[in-house]
Amino acid sequence: MVLQRSKKRVITKYQNGKLEVVEDEIATEFPITIHVNGEEFATMVCTPTHLDELVIGFLASEGVILFKDDVTNLEIDEGLGFAYVTLKSNAFTNHPDHSKRFIGSCCGKSRQFYLQSDVRTAKTSMSNTKMKVEQCIQLMNTMQENSIMFKNTGGVHNAALCSPTELIVDRTDIGRHNALDKLYGYSMANSIPVRDKVIVFSGRISSEVLIKAAKIGVGIVLSKSAPTDLAIELAEDLNITTIGFIRGQTFNVYSHPERIINS
Amino acid sequence: MVLQRSKKRVITKYQNGKLEVVEDEIATEFPITIHVNGEEFATMVCTPTHLDELVIGFLASEGVILFKDDVTNLEIDEGLGFAYVTLKSNAFTNHPDHSKRFIGSCCGKSRQFYLQSDVRTAKTSMSNTKMKVEQCIQLMNTMQENSIMFKNTGGVHNAALCSPTELIVDRTDIGRHNALDKLYGYSMANSIPVRDKVIVFSGRISSEVLIKAAKIGVGIVLSKSAPTDLAIELAEDLNITTIGFIRGQTFNVYSHPERIINS
Repeated sequence: MVLQRSKKRVITKYQNGKLEVVEDEIATEFPITIHVNGEEFATMVCTPTHLDELVIGFLASEGVILFKDDVTNLEIDEGLGFAYVTLKSNAFTNHPDHSKRFIGSCCGKSRQFYLQSDVRTAKTSMSNTKMKVEQCIQLMNTMQENSIMFKNTGGVHNAALCSPTELIVDRTDIGRHNALDKLYGYSMANSIPVRDKVIVFSGRISSEVLIKAAKIGVGIVLSKSAPTDLAIELAEDLNITTIGFIRGQTFNVYSHPERIINS
Repeated sequence: MVLQRSKKRVITKYQNGKLEVVEDEIATEFPITIHVNGEEFATMVCTPTHLDELVIGFLASEGVILFKDDVTNLEIDEGLGFAYVTLKSNAFTNHPDHSKRFIGSCCGKSRQFYLQSDVRTAKTSMSNTKMKVEQCIQLMNTMQENSIMFKNTGGVHNAALCSPTELIVDRTDIGRHNALDKLYGYSMANSIPVRDKVIVFSGRISSEVLIKAAKIGVGIVLSKSAPTDLAIELAEDLNITTIGFIRGQTFNVYSHPERIINS
């Protein structure tokens, strides 16, 4: 069974002052329900590509797993949209508080993680990577040029794991969190060293996106869009460089600009 | 206490070939935890405006309440970011399955609601509203012109409840679901008749957005962005007209084009 990322549909288009029936290409939205150790854990909607990476990355993002070996079995029923995950340990059931909010004052006033699982898995970056301004612009251009699906449907987000000089892997999804979770799942499954890597992202940098980047373990996040204040404060604390609004020959550096070099 | 929707920050801007320190305006991201009848229900991040509407609209979206009178008390602690909701009935605790996935075949092959609460609260539209093509374009322009915050921060979504001829109320949030939940809360709190109203939205039309529009009760959804295939199928079933990619003098009608008139 091959799930389709997009579908042809007949729509009514208004252009040149007329309503006309035309064919268009629409992004697919696929519901998937994840069971962990026999219990229903979550249902999400996604673009049905790289579902194994999505499930692994999602569980890592949620703090349910820490290493790829924590998953002993993963079966995906593409027909019905179910994923069945078996975990090695009982880490999952030992943490009933995994979705409880946590507000600590011990780690600096701005480091306000709101879920306890984030405290266990978000890492302060030890990255020594430096990037030239031209490289920031080039990576964003490369990711966007690669995204055929966005050009066709206009309805998806892109995320790419890169070195400062080249794109290693990119993933697409209707959900911006899913696109990052697929990257996370890819890097875990393939044991990619992430410390000196960069995430390039089409979506806004919210605190959730920033925490996800910290969990994945990169030191630099490049975005086409805006950040939030909370994301910037977290990035300051976690030693992550955040760059937004990469458009043409301009961009904004919101945190740790010392990694960006204008040569 | 007045919470700020955006904050000034010093950033490093790359433009005209130079890295320069400048002041910028950043959208605030505010975490709020909702307690229902003494139990923690959910934590979300939002733009801290109209928090009462957000809480009411969110609970209605989740199927926890059906009418505004279901809430007998609502207290918001803006300092700590907590909302305490007391419900009249024990409807909430009677439905432990409210987040369980539901796949039914009884309502047509495409009507695949994935949460049981959606089945109880999404309504097939009985709207008799018709709109002229010029009105669709005009409402989108009006909403965008109103959005000072977007112009300043670039980091928020807008949603507006409108008649075919004018904007009634608009709401802004860093989360696209929150912007719609604020509209939902507003329309419930003010007993606005919604059947013949229109939602104008800056974000993409996913199935979740479409279901939210159906719950709010409108017959037409106008978006600046793309829909997904599942959202279009739900819109066909629920008798909702969906329009996307309203840009300049063009747009696409994805479902029920009979409501759109080119005079």
